[in-house]
Parts: sequence; C-alpha cells; structure tokens
Amino acid sequence: MSSKPCRALTLESMNPYVKEAQYAVRGELAVRSEEYRAKLANGEGKDLPFDTVIAANIGNPQQLDQKPITFFRQVASLLENPLLLEHEETFVKSLGYKSDVFERARWLLEEINSVGAYSQSQGAPAIRESVAKYIERRDGYPASFQDIYLSNGASSGVNTLMNVICASPNTGVMVPIPQYPLYTATLSVLNAKCVPYYLEERHAWGTSLEAIRTSYDKAVAEGTDVKAIAIINPGNPTGASLPAEDIQSVLEFAAEKQLVVIADEVYQTNVFIGEFISFKKALRDLQKEQPGKFDHVELASLHSISKGMVGECGHRGGYLELVGFDPEVAQQIYKYISIQLCPPVIGQCIVEVMVNPPKEGEPSYELYKKEYDGIFNGLKERAHALYDAFEHMEGVECDKPHGSMYLFPTIKLPQKAIEQAKKENRSPDEFYCFRMLDATGVCVVAGSGFGQKEGTLHFRTTFLAPGTEWTGRIVQFHKDFMAEFK
Amino acid sequence: MSSKPCRALTLESMNPYVKEAQYAVRGELAVRSEEYRAKLANGEGKDLPFDTVIAANIGNPQQLDQKPITFFRQVASLLENPLLLEHEETFVKSLGYKSDVFERARWLLEEINSVGAYSQSQGAPAIRESVAKYIERRDGYPASFQDIYLSNGASSGVNTLMNVICASPNTGVMVPIPQYPLYTATLSVLNAKCVPYYLEERHAWGTSLEAIRTSYDKAVAEGTDVKAIAIINPGNPTGASLPAEDIQSVLEFAAEKQLVVIADEVYQTNVFIGEFISFKKALRDLQKEQPGKFDHVELASLHSISKGMVGECGHRGGYLELVGFDPEVAQQIYKYISIQLCPPVIGQCIVEVMVNPPKEGEPSYELYKKEYDGIFNGLKERAHALYDAFEHMEGVECDKPHGSMYLFPTIKLPQKAIEQAKKENRSPDEFYCFRMLDATGVCVVAGSGFGQKEGTLHFRTTFLAPGTEWTGRIVQFHKDFMAEFK
Repeated sequence: MSSKPCRALTLESMNPYVKEAQYAVRGELAVRSEEYRAKLANGEGKDLPFDTVIAANIGNPQQLDQKPITFFRQVASLLENPLLLEHEETFVKSLGYKSDVFERARWLLEEINSVGAYSQSQGAPAIRESVAKYIERRDGYPASFQDIYLSNGASSGVNTLMNVICASPNTGVMVPIPQYPLYTATLSVLNAKCVPYYLEERHAWGTSLEAIRTSYDKAVAEGTDVKAIAIINPGNPTGASLPAEDIQSVLEFAAEKQLVVIADEVYQTNVFIGEFISFKKALRDLQKEQPGKFDHVELASLHSISKGMVGECGHRGGYLELVGFDPEVAQQIYKYISIQLCPPVIGQCIVEVMVNPPKEGEPSYELYKKEYDGIFNGLKERAHALYDAFEHMEGVECDKPHGSMYLFPTIKLPQKAIEQAKKENRSPDEFYCFRMLDATGVCVVAGSGFGQKEGTLHFRTTFLAPGTEWTGRIVQFHKDFMAEFK
Repeated sequence: MSSKPCRALTLESMNPYVKEAQYAVRGELAVRSEEYRAKLANGEGKDLPFDTVIAANIGNPQQLDQKPITFFRQVASLLENPLLLEHEETFVKSLGYKSDVFERARWLLEEINSVGAYSQSQGAPAIRESVAKYIERRDGYPASFQDIYLSNGASSGVNTLMNVICASPNTGVMVPIPQYPLYTATLSVLNAKCVPYYLEERHAWGTSLEAIRTSYDKAVAEGTDVKAIAIINPGNPTGASLPAEDIQSVLEFAAEKQLVVIADEVYQTNVFIGEFISFKKALRDLQKEQPGKFDHVELASLHSISKGMVGECGHRGGYLELVGFDPEVAQQIYKYISIQLCPPVIGQCIVEVMVNPPKEGEPSYELYKKEYDGIFNGLKERAHALYDAFEHMEGVECDKPHGSMYLFPTIKLPQKAIEQAKKENRSPDEFYCFRMLDATGVCVVAGSGFGQKEGTLHFRTTFLAPGTEWTGRIVQFHKDFMAEFK
C-alpha cells in the first residue's frame, strides 16, 4: 500500500502492463553497481573489497575503453559548429583534419541544414540514400531510401514495429529465449503475448525449426494470433552467429505461417567466426531461387550505431529497413513515428558516416582502417581471454566467442548456494551475480534476465572492459564462491 | 482492401489504435509541401506559382532563419571531438573560442566520459543537478536532481507519463482544446480516453474553470476514470500565456479531484506579454499559503531545448520534473525509460548549457547575451508583423502575440468555400490551408488538426520565417480566395 492514499498515481492505479515489464539489464544489480561507483568516487568506498566498478552488464563500449573513430568525430565537430568550416586551413595544418572531413561535413550540412533542425520524420533523405547504398553493397540486391526509417537507436525501431503489430491482447510475437529483454518488456507494456522459442545451446545457440514449430503450434492451440517472429543475429545475449541454414529455415517458416520477420542485426559487424548473412540477402536469394513462394514475406531489419566498431551508443542512431510491407501500413508507420517528430539529427549523421566511411585512397582512409581493425582485433582478443578464463572455472561452460559483444556461460552451482538463494528470495543466478558484484565490483547480468531453459543457469558479460585484471577478479570470486557453498 | 491478402500486416490486421491516431502537424499538408520543396530543388517546379516553400507548419527555428547560439555549439564541437581540447591556444587565438567554452567542455566530459557512451537512464547526474539549480533560480523553491528525468525532447517525456498513467481503456486524461496533437495522438495509441476541455478564445485562450468542471463531470458521469489534466503554457497552438489565476484554479481543481497535473512548459522563455509563471512555483506558493491542502498534488512539468531562444529541435533534448509523485511510481518510470536505454547524450549536454548559460562577467557572456536578445526581439518583431497582416485580412481575427511561436487566427469563410470543401471531402479550414499551400508555398496547419469549437475555423502558423515577403503571399492569397468564393 502507498503511504499517501490521496495520490492519483500509485502502484495500484498505474498502468499494470508497465508495472509487469521486466528489464534486468538496468535493474537492481545495475543500480547497486552505480551506488558502489558513486561511493568510490566520493572517497567513501574504502571498506569495499575492490577499487573500481566494471560495468560488464551493458554493451557500452565508450564508457569503458573503446575510443570513437576519429573521422566520425571530426565530421561531427564541424557539424556542431559550422563556423569552423571557414577555417579549413587551420584544421588541416594544425589539427590533423583531412580535406575529406570538410567535404563530408559540408555535404551533410547542405542536406540537413542544421543538426539543430528537425529532419523529416523518417530521417534526412540523403542519409537514407547512403543507408540504401550500404545495404546494396552488403547484400548485392537493390535497396531504396524510401524503405529506410532512421531511428533513435535500434530500440525505438523495435518499439515502433511492436506498436504497429500488436493489435490486441491476443497478438503474439515469437521471441528467442534467451533474448535481449527489450522484446519481452515491450510486449509486456503493449499487453501482447510473448511466444517464446528456445535457442539450442548445444548447437552454438542456433535456432531449431522444431522448437519454433512446437512453440508456434502451442500458441495457436491456445488461441494466440501469432503475427511476427523476432531473431537476433548475431545473438544477444548468446553471442551466436547464425549459419545460413538457420536463417533460411526461419524465413521458410515465416513464409508458411505469414509472420512478419523482425531481424535484429545490430551486431552485424561483430562476427569472429564465419560471415554475417543478412536476412534481407537470404530472403532475396530464396525469392530468386523459388519464384513466387517468398514474395509475400514481410521483413524488418534493424541496425544501429551503438555496436560494431562504431560504439556510439550515446548518440542514439539506427535504422530500420522495411521489405515487402504493405504501403498503407508503411504510411501508418510514418504517421506513428511523426508523433515523436524525428530521430536525433547528429545521430543520423553518425549513421551516415558509419555506412559510408572513408574509402581506400581517400585522405582519412588509412587512419580509419587502422582504428577499425584495432577495435575489431581488440574485441576478439578480449573475448578469447575471457573465454580462456571461463575454461578454467569449475562448473562453468561456454562456447567459443562467435560474435556480438557478449559471452553467456552456463554455470552449475552447488546445492547449498541454490538453497541460500532461495532464502534470500533470489533466483540462483541472480544470487551468484549479486555475490560477484559485492566481492569484485564486476557487474554482469543473470541469465534469468534474458530467459533460459528451466533448470539451467547462466550469466551474460560483455568483453569490452580492457585488461585481464578484472577477469582475474571473477576467477578468484568463483573459486571462493564454490568453496563457500561446497 | 490490401492488394496482397497473404501479408501478415495490413490496415485491417495492424494495431487499430495506432491507425486511429491523428497527427496533422506532419500530415497530408506537410507531405505535399515536401513534394513541392523537392520539385523546386530538382528544377521541376517552374510551373509552381512560388519559388520557395515556407514551412510555417512546425516550430523548427533552425530550418528557417534562427542561428544556433555560438557558446552552445562551440562546447558541442569540443564534446564531439575531445582531441581538440589539446589545442586550446589555437582555438582561442584563431577560432574565437573563449576559455569558458573549454572549461565547460572539460567538465561535461569528466561527467559523461563520452557523448558516445550511454548515460544513466534518467540522464547524467551532473546535468540533472544543473537542471535542478535552474529550477531553483527560476522559482525560488528547492529542486532535486533525483526528480529530474532527461528526455528525448519533451515529446518522449509526455509519452512516458501517458504510458504510466493510462491503466485501462477507461482512463481519462483532460486535454485542452485546441491542443498540440501529441496529446490526443498518444492517448489514441494507448487506447485511453481524451477528456477535452475548451480554452476561452475570447479571454485570450485562457483556461475556464467552468469549462474544465463541466467536461470533468460529463466524463465521470459516463464512467471515465479521469486521472490527469494536461496544460500547455505558453500555449500551443494558441500562443497564450496563462495568468496566475488560471494556473491557480487548475491546481485547485487538480487537488480537489486528485488529478496528476501535466504542465507542458516548453515555451517558458517565449513570452512577450507579462511573465511566465511555472506550475511548480504556483504549487509551492499554494502549499505555503494553505498548508495541508495541496500536499498530495502530483505535478510533472516539461521543458525542452527545441524552443525558446535555443531552438535545438534536432538535438532532441528535454527534461521532466516530477513533484509529489509516489516514490514507487517514480521507480516504475525509471524502469520504463530504461527499456529505451537513455536520451541522446549530446542533447543532454545542450540541456546543460541551456539551463546554465554563460553568466555576466564570464568570457562568453557578452556574445551569448547579444545573440539571445537578438533572437528574442526578432521573434517578437516577426510575430507583430504577422499580426499586423492578419489585422488587414477580411474575416480574420487574431489575438495580439502573447508567447510561444505561433499565431492561431480565427477565419470566417464564405458559404461557397464551405460547400466546395464539402465536395472535396475536407473540413473548410483544411480546404483553405491546402489552397494556401498550392497558391503560395506557405504550409500552415488547419485548426481542425488541434481541435476547435464546433462552428469555428482557425489555422496555426509559426512566426519563425524571416522577412515579410511570405506574409505578403498569405495576404494576397486570402484576398483572392475570398473573391473567388464570395
């Protein structure tokens, strides 16, 4: 009960669907880690058994060690203060800017007028053109700027799609488990049904057509109107990179059952094993190979500036490509996004430089390439260092790093730990993660925050933090934890 | 009917509440004006009776003539490229930057780490501290950074509040008519009830307690659970600046009926007549004068970087202050906004410089003051020039400019025009606005897009466009229109 009964808004009277939504990535663990961070900053943390907090709970590269790509930020600095464009000579001679930085900034300003002005609701047309060209180069199939919707990070793109798709409490959207909780949280808020399908941990967290079919049939038998299927590739939290067969079988299933395919491809450049295949390319291949059968498939694919070697989360940029959507529905999407006016314009510009970086032979190319490769290799090395540490931890099993920014190891905890967790009203994996945070300052997210098969336990950690010292903290904690509860 | 019946998503199967939402500010008129603009840009517009399109439909200062404030953008340029911080001497000697620009940028970067990193969901604590101090200076009452939620423009703040408040299809929110259609559109999407209350045109578009009470009683009699009342002050689209009595009577009514007060105060610095009084100050005054009676009032007030002399719409920054909210509800709001991670960080930084601009005696003060006053006076002059033009138009009546960025004249149209509109399936004011666009290239918004009393007709125009040439176009069009339909 609330202490002030005469308030209009209490836990009892507020929107129950907002109340039900779960979002563990920034939940209680993250809040406690921020308290530790504040304590250490204020000099009040001398009693803590660690001297830094490591935010391994969230894919936030620039909060840790990742430097922004110089070309992107040089362009952005000129966009923010166009008066500097008059001083190209000073910038080139004394500040390390190249002529292509100025060219790009001038062109973007011509197109957007000012980063302080609203753009069209869908985003600046010229930037959407650059995105379409990027998709064409990536897939070898045409793309049109009219199908591109720039967004406020990929999250707002998912929100838009879910709002348009969820027509009643009976609407179901298939969501992989484990999943990034944006999906389940948004479905909760919209009072629609999450239709979970389990990924196959023993097959490197790939999709299983059987699991998808079983889950779909069950939902339909219960009266759910299943309208869409979401896939995250490369995976979050799993880190998996899907093979061609998995993508194809999801598209075949979607064609068979008339499901909108929502392909969350924000980690498309974070791939260490094999090659990224976009759902758009896979769909176009199928349409070419089997004419007629896939023409009606509706695909929405998402990308973002937050991940990859860009890591510009704070700029909130991204895009959504609609393929095969009803033009009347696309108009409704346009209206819906107009209510929030437009995505951040400087974020739109970062989308542009991401999809259209300096090319070989251009003045800024060499540094761009060096930075890009450096970040890629750094992430790969860190991923493997963390993986090696997990290899030596009792009761911890983990796949080789495939992609994205995460490892998602299974943990087997002693019975005593499970009982202690129960006493503290926590799931065992949450209990383990709180203990880890309290002992090491390392903040990870419990598997239960993403969903996991009954009886299994996991945690998700990013591999963004530099060095191996923090990995050592986890290894030592785990040893002590296992000893304590043996 | 859709042409492809096997698509999952059609007008028939999509979310009907998204479909029902209306948002005229970027509706059909705006779309047509963009087509004209594209035509002119491509050199295909030689048959058009105008050579420029004037976007007077939307408060987008920097798309027109308003220049960004130099200090803000100098700071932003350094935030985007922190490597420039090493070259203070070059910037001061050759590029006109002052030392306080560097101080501010260094301090902000210490607080946020990088504009490319996610901040806390509520926004960076130090920036929220600056906002709290601004509110304290403005109102003379304490404010806490813990009650401040930075947002993605004010629109996302309104969206958050509505999502938390609207608990069922039976929940009602009182909305002024005419209103900025964000309110009605958001209520449509959430399938909640808009409880309209009419503003009093003959009293300079002020609130009428009687109108509010009548509307409330009617809604309650119909079984609506009225939970909140929204007020826009200064007004959009009306341009009105509310007197102290109106604000007080709204607060008294909210206290009596237990309504959350949503005060949209994004135009708080756009006031030409009288003085802006915040709902927060008015509430604290009442709480002091009549102890006990107003303690339970819940107020959410919104501000933005998009309007005022800042005009940084494209940066999507704003904030929300919660006053008197249940702490458990505030926690739910925190969780809800976390699902979308955080507002754009460079937008957060522009909020900081807006609420904490250079002070008298500081190196950048003089230029800041000059620019700020120049924009203020320019807006006032343009408002009066437009007002003078309306004075000389037959059948057009308009209040003196009070504030915000709009004039909202009444138009009386000849019967023949009303009949022609009917034939074309348009409301008479929409018909008039389409004719204006086709004849002059000036895009305004019809009163029906905001709501208006039965039998009255209006249009909303911004007074942001420079010069008087476009005003002349409207005057000439109106004369021709009246002659045609006499």
